[in-house]
Amino acid sequence: MRILGLDPSISSTGWGIIDVNGNRLSYVADGFIATKAKDGLSQRLHTIFNELTKVIETYKPDEASIEITFLNENPETSLKLSMARGVVFLMPALYNIPLYEYEPNKIKKALTGVGRADKKQVETMVKILLPGCAPKNNDSSDALAIAITHSNLRASFGNHAA
Amino acid sequence: MRILGLDPSISSTGWGIIDVNGNRLSYVADGFIATKAKDGLSQRLHTIFNELTKVIETYKPDEASIEITFLNENPETSLKLSMARGVVFLMPALYNIPLYEYEPNKIKKALTGVGRADKKQVETMVKILLPGCAPKNNDSSDALAIAITHSNLRASFGNHAA
Repeated sequence: MRILGLDPSISSTGWGIIDVNGNRLSYVADGFIATKAKDGLSQRLHTIFNELTKVIETYKPDEASIEITFLNENPETSLKLSMARGVVFLMPALYNIPLYEYEPNKIKKALTGVGRADKKQVETMVKILLPGCAPKNNDSSDALAIAITHSNLRASFGNHAA
Repeated sequence: MRILGLDPSISSTGWGIIDVNGNRLSYVADGFIATKAKDGLSQRLHTIFNELTKVIETYKPDEASIEITFLNENPETSLKLSMARGVVFLMPALYNIPLYEYEPNKIKKALTGVGRADKKQVETMVKILLPGCAPKNNDSSDALAIAITHSNLRASFGNHAA
């Protein structure tokens, strides 16, 4: 079972791939898709689409997982993030890959045992749970954390597919 | 010159196609892409993607236009609308079609001469400006209005591509 974790944003979308064998997790790959503001929204979404296509076609994940987001204090940021999420939500559907959503505190709790852990704690646990993994940046580390969360919770998660 | 107007939403995305020959506008086609809440967000975005692909491949527009949206009073609605907008913004980029954004009051003013016109007035003007056109619903009528706005303003609009 191969899981794709996704941490979208318009400027840098993190992705991470892990394999799950029974209770054993292993790191496969991670990365982030950076886009430039000067390119305009349409082109930035196109970049996310193209790069995620490559990730999915290269690693062929069986399931995908993503964080549930809420309205940010900056409305414009929230709207742009949601546009990136729109493209990121589209991708698994294009490849018939089920997508699961998890609340931020569920992800933190799955990784650290605490729903209010900070980013540093989450990243430390990602490295411990995936030996040999040195995440490319915060976004890809978060994406791996979301993939790990899904590996832990998928059995009990029922049919909450997005 | 053929223009595609787009009025996205997660439940019903309107589209409209017009041809522009000098000052003459003519109606080509319009429609809306309905999706069902029970299908989940990922699948609904997939439907928008598939149906818009058909529209673009059938009518081969040269340019596309869309309304600028702002935060709605209902945050969840705004986030879902933005996800649909993300997919709709992606589509022209996939086909190398320039996309232009217009503020709602610019669209109303371009159609009726008044920035605060109501939906009914806009729809009436769409029918007058595009003889023989009977828009399929409000969403496709709005999409045609956005296409007409772009036909009027594109010359003066400069490089405000999205």
